[in-house]
Amino acid sequence: MTKKDTEILKRFKSVGARIETKSRVKLKSKEDFALFYTPGVGVVSKHLAAHPEDARLYSIKRNSVAVISDGSAVLGLGNIGPYGALPVMEGKALIFKELAGIDAWPIVLDTQNTDEIVNAIIAIASGWGGINLEDFSAPRCFEIEQRLIEALAIPVMHDDQHGTAVVVLAGLLNAAKVVKKQCKNLRVVISGAGAAGVAITKLLLSAGIQDIIVTDTKGIINEGRTDLTDIKRELAEITNPRAVSGDLLDALIDADAFIGVSGPGSVTKDHIKVMAKKSIVFALANPIPEILPEEARAGGAMVIATGRSDFPNQLNNSLVFPGIFRGALDKGVQKITNETKLRAAKALAALIPNPTATKIIPDNLDKRVVPAIAKAVR
Amino acid sequence: MTKKDTEILKRFKSVGARIETKSRVKLKSKEDFALFYTPGVGVVSKHLAAHPEDARLYSIKRNSVAVISDGSAVLGLGNIGPYGALPVMEGKALIFKELAGIDAWPIVLDTQNTDEIVNAIIAIASGWGGINLEDFSAPRCFEIEQRLIEALAIPVMHDDQHGTAVVVLAGLLNAAKVVKKQCKNLRVVISGAGAAGVAITKLLLSAGIQDIIVTDTKGIINEGRTDLTDIKRELAEITNPRAVSGDLLDALIDADAFIGVSGPGSVTKDHIKVMAKKSIVFALANPIPEILPEEARAGGAMVIATGRSDFPNQLNNSLVFPGIFRGALDKGVQKITNETKLRAAKALAALIPNPTATKIIPDNLDKRVVPAIAKAVR
Repeated sequence: MTKKDTEILKRFKSVGARIETKSRVKLKSKEDFALFYTPGVGVVSKHLAAHPEDARLYSIKRNSVAVISDGSAVLGLGNIGPYGALPVMEGKALIFKELAGIDAWPIVLDTQNTDEIVNAIIAIASGWGGINLEDFSAPRCFEIEQRLIEALAIPVMHDDQHGTAVVVLAGLLNAAKVVKKQCKNLRVVISGAGAAGVAITKLLLSAGIQDIIVTDTKGIINEGRTDLTDIKRELAEITNPRAVSGDLLDALIDADAFIGVSGPGSVTKDHIKVMAKKSIVFALANPIPEILPEEARAGGAMVIATGRSDFPNQLNNSLVFPGIFRGALDKGVQKITNETKLRAAKALAALIPNPTATKIIPDNLDKRVVPAIAKAVR
Repeated sequence: MTKKDTEILKRFKSVGARIETKSRVKLKSKEDFALFYTPGVGVVSKHLAAHPEDARLYSIKRNSVAVISDGSAVLGLGNIGPYGALPVMEGKALIFKELAGIDAWPIVLDTQNTDEIVNAIIAIASGWGGINLEDFSAPRCFEIEQRLIEALAIPVMHDDQHGTAVVVLAGLLNAAKVVKKQCKNLRVVISGAGAAGVAITKLLLSAGIQDIIVTDTKGIINEGRTDLTDIKRELAEITNPRAVSGDLLDALIDADAFIGVSGPGSVTKDHIKVMAKKSIVFALANPIPEILPEEARAGGAMVIATGRSDFPNQLNNSLVFPGIFRGALDKGVQKITNETKLRAAKALAALIPNPTATKIIPDNLDKRVVPAIAKAVR
């Protein structure tokens, strides 16, 4: 462990927990007890038993989000289980409160079985206003999210998929402006066919971008591949219109944009050199990007973004999830639709009306972000 | 709905929720983000993945309790489901925070199947420091609690059972002083063989009280009954040493103490009249007791307690659960043992060294209560 890591641990230990609960009413007298506990609470219980739809008006359901993970794909750390996931979920709960005033609480799951996960989340869902799924590995994450969306009458969003997709589309809209190309006409290469890669692909397609190639560790995903999972077979069908085959280097020839959601250090200057002029490079692996900004620039990239706060253009999903859930809670929205995600991406991009190579996206502390995205939720 | 009920609903609606989350750290700068979210949080995630036992030092697990119900036996309202349960659980979370500084959050379950309940709670348990089960109906509550205690390495307590049992024993210890009888020699009749009745019976037995008769809606529970569930058959074996049969009135002949955990209005002055002199009457059905204090007094009762705040001697489990979990969290205790409950009852009773007929138990706003009970947890 580095000295810096030891210091971080020490700091977290002195803090203990980063969130806590807080009372919103006084409980100082017998009268307070009689009103806010028994017998007063019985009146509300009877009312909600008869009118469950009013839970949003009379309980924590009005403003609460469960941040749920099974710890199977935590940050870049991989499958580190519920205790490994807990600090990240707590961090998200902190962000929910600080950026969007939402009462989020972490729930980490001690199972990685899809049925058990779905059953447990359905069982505990009633008291929450929304469910933010986090750090579930692909391809299980797709089925888990889909089944929960169908089963529950509250918004359910796997943030690694859709939060990332929205921020990438927002970044791409503005990056296209900077390089003076039509976004819809961009040739895009997405490296990584996990949760983020799949969701980015689908959102870019629905935004009208037609020439997308997706690669995984075996190379370009195309219909000739015989080793594809169901979700990758679907990707083969809906992407790669020029039927390119080969590896990432082949995919990048004349590409306008590279979007990395794979792993550290998988891309070199030589990869960037084969791209079209004025190329866009989003190297989003965290904490170590697919290629460092200086190397991408040396390869010819014009607009470069990463997931890190210490480089320009941080494309982080914390720009998205607080506003999405703020909007859904405020408006009683039950499903986060594709249209919502497109509107959210456009709203986020529109906050930087005159983007430059080093400023395509707002800072996640920019107070305009949450209201702009919340407004996009209908 | 009465005018008062309408006012209560209006008040709850204006409050919205009685609890919320609160940040314990600042998140105002990029540096704050880098420390308390990524990449800083990754250091803690790695540490906890390798050392799950340290979750108590570095996360919400240090001070959190899930307040969980399936809504099958809510207050005196019966089986009103998760939405009916939600306001009560929120009220308990409020009490946890206000009285014991514990970060509790309500979880209401959309299933009443024992296996599904146990599986869901085990699945979500890792992030919590303790689990307070609430308002689960008997006899399911016994199996659910037992299986969770065996499966989990955090304290699990069904408060309707053990919170109630502890406060009843505490009250009985002091009531015996008032009527100048030896607590161990009391003839006790318990009306109601549900969650509370069973737990009270077992705790009083382990406190050395030997002559206990339990009644249910069919009358006295004894070994001659052929209609008994498993748990009631167990009660028949461990109680009723004089092998009394008949109904509640038969049970009460010469009894020193009546403990009602059944339903409203089931006891009259005539029942109390057949009891021994200087009788003790705990009529704990809520909000309407088995017998009102004035009628019990007219029947000859000397010490009278209810579950209500508007009569003297309120025996409410909110005197117990905050301190039990405060002690367990502070000391990393994994099981709430029978010894703990006995010590807690004695500690609670000892706070009123000179009890009188109208003061056998501390007020639940008495600041000494939580520390005294927490100290009893080892």
